[in-house]
Amino acid sequence: MNREFSVAVLGATGAVGNEMLRLLEQRAFPIRELRLLASARSAGKTLSFRESEIAIQTATPESFAGIDLGLFSAGASRSRELAQAAVAAGAVVVDNSSAFRMNEDVPLVVPEINWDSVKPENRIFAVPNCTAIVLLMAVHPLRQLGRIDRIILSTYQSASGGGAALMADLEKQTQAAISGQSIAPEVSPHPYAFNLFSHNTPVNEHGYNEEEWKVIQESRKILDMPDLKINVTCVRVPILRAHSESITVEFAGPAPSEQAVREVLSRSPGVRVVDDRAANHFPMPAEASGQDDVLVGRIRQDVSNPNAVCLFACGDQLRKGAALNAIQIAERILLREPATV
Amino acid sequence: MNREFSVAVLGATGAVGNEMLRLLEQRAFPIRELRLLASARSAGKTLSFRESEIAIQTATPESFAGIDLGLFSAGASRSRELAQAAVAAGAVVVDNSSAFRMNEDVPLVVPEINWDSVKPENRIFAVPNCTAIVLLMAVHPLRQLGRIDRIILSTYQSASGGGAALMADLEKQTQAAISGQSIAPEVSPHPYAFNLFSHNTPVNEHGYNEEEWKVIQESRKILDMPDLKINVTCVRVPILRAHSESITVEFAGPAPSEQAVREVLSRSPGVRVVDDRAANHFPMPAEASGQDDVLVGRIRQDVSNPNAVCLFACGDQLRKGAALNAIQIAERILLREPATV
Repeated sequence: MNREFSVAVLGATGAVGNEMLRLLEQRAFPIRELRLLASARSAGKTLSFRESEIAIQTATPESFAGIDLGLFSAGASRSRELAQAAVAAGAVVVDNSSAFRMNEDVPLVVPEINWDSVKPENRIFAVPNCTAIVLLMAVHPLRQLGRIDRIILSTYQSASGGGAALMADLEKQTQAAISGQSIAPEVSPHPYAFNLFSHNTPVNEHGYNEEEWKVIQESRKILDMPDLKINVTCVRVPILRAHSESITVEFAGPAPSEQAVREVLSRSPGVRVVDDRAANHFPMPAEASGQDDVLVGRIRQDVSNPNAVCLFACGDQLRKGAALNAIQIAERILLREPATV
Repeated sequence: MNREFSVAVLGATGAVGNEMLRLLEQRAFPIRELRLLASARSAGKTLSFRESEIAIQTATPESFAGIDLGLFSAGASRSRELAQAAVAAGAVVVDNSSAFRMNEDVPLVVPEINWDSVKPENRIFAVPNCTAIVLLMAVHPLRQLGRIDRIILSTYQSASGGGAALMADLEKQTQAAISGQSIAPEVSPHPYAFNLFSHNTPVNEHGYNEEEWKVIQESRKILDMPDLKINVTCVRVPILRAHSESITVEFAGPAPSEQAVREVLSRSPGVRVVDDRAANHFPMPAEASGQDDVLVGRIRQDVSNPNAVCLFACGDQLRKGAALNAIQIAERILLREPATV
């Protein structure tokens, strides 16, 4: 366990890339060399890591010589271009993009949920969509209490899912609105100050947008329930960096008691129950931001269906929704279970 | 139809009261005398109406002499104190509070939906909860297409539901947050800048808060479906004045087609379909604010249930959610159907 690793971060200048650097510091990941990779327009800039300044290099297929671990967060097309080169150079790749998620040969991993899907020969590991991760951290533990038949989800997604540029645009538009001005959005597809909008990914022939379709498909893969019934409505709200989700879980038989749900969630790693009815204190993005745990509360029977329970969950989109889940995968591969690599 | 009426507005200084004054102006309601009533602390202040300034009087049981119409929006306890006095003085009362909504002898009215619940002897008319109104404006028309069995609702409610003070507090907290400061909330129960929270009304033994319970009970009364299955999650989001709702409607049999839903909504008074998949343009609070119509879109089959359809609706909480619905009731009673009074 004294081994140190050469790590490449692809997309180091983005919101998720920055969060990965902070987590590598905070979690004292054993690093021999850190290589920061980004597009050509960031080359030459530096980023700070453990009190030194590291110059950013332009990412190319040749960037991965000697690298043990590639942490990728530069979008699906960059991942498709570079992942095989990294693997060929001997690296393990943990990819935050959607490039490989539905690839049969790539495990789509939330470590607390489906580490058993990882095979010794895997070299590329996909981090699921952020909304799917927050959803399943809350829902997967309930499988101990009965067979889940259907999930109904409405989301309250933060700006961070659109990257640092969307976060900055939300702040800029909000500042203008408060000053009584109206400015054109630079990044958001619609006015964003004190407004919300349907997730602005392309809508398919079923009327679902790409984000909703990802959550549906990825949830089925992660839970290994190809026929899971799941309905998703994804909405972008004017919040900076944690996603919230209103969740109804229908079981194949009578729903477990609130107490049973609370107990099973309370002992689930990575979940914190926030469910104080007397104080009216439930999960909020302001309290989920910067936290590793997914907060879950509003635990109650669905009064419209004896087989269902309702939950409300909040998780930091940049942490468990992306960077933390990626680092956790890397830690399990390189630090905790070297025999599987 | 040349009659003019003496109108008293109770709660004239509030967000809904102000909206009622603007609507009485815009809709040219025939007014002989306008009496503005509020609590003692507002007495003596003036409000403008049709280019004159009207002094606010302290509301007492004696305030209603000669009044034909009382428009009440000062909270449930004030309504309970004063409604009978107004009726005894000969007035018809349209009440925006929750005081009489579930009273068997009081019609709970959305004019487009259940005007047939109004009886000639009624003198008090209750305006439903704002969230219930927006929900049912979108859902009621679908009853032409099949028997509704269950509704699943998650809300994105604006600050205006908490009154002018909550709207101001949201702006103030947001201004501070953008300046990098953190200030204590003055009105909101939790930090509100770039945050959301579960609706902060008391939570009952079923785990539902008072707002959710109102929507459940009032929807059953308005639709005259005492056994309607309905599940509601109410969330306050950092938006100023329109409510949004993610709605799943389950039918007793196979769901109607998207096209049938779109057609029936398109010809429903008070509803505007906003459902442009190619342009990714769906209902948004920024476009619903200040509008009379409830915007409905994201019309699609529920991929998890062949008997269900999904909708997303936005309505101005101060307009159709409160003041407009009240004025519409008053217009029907006093202007359009004098024979029923």
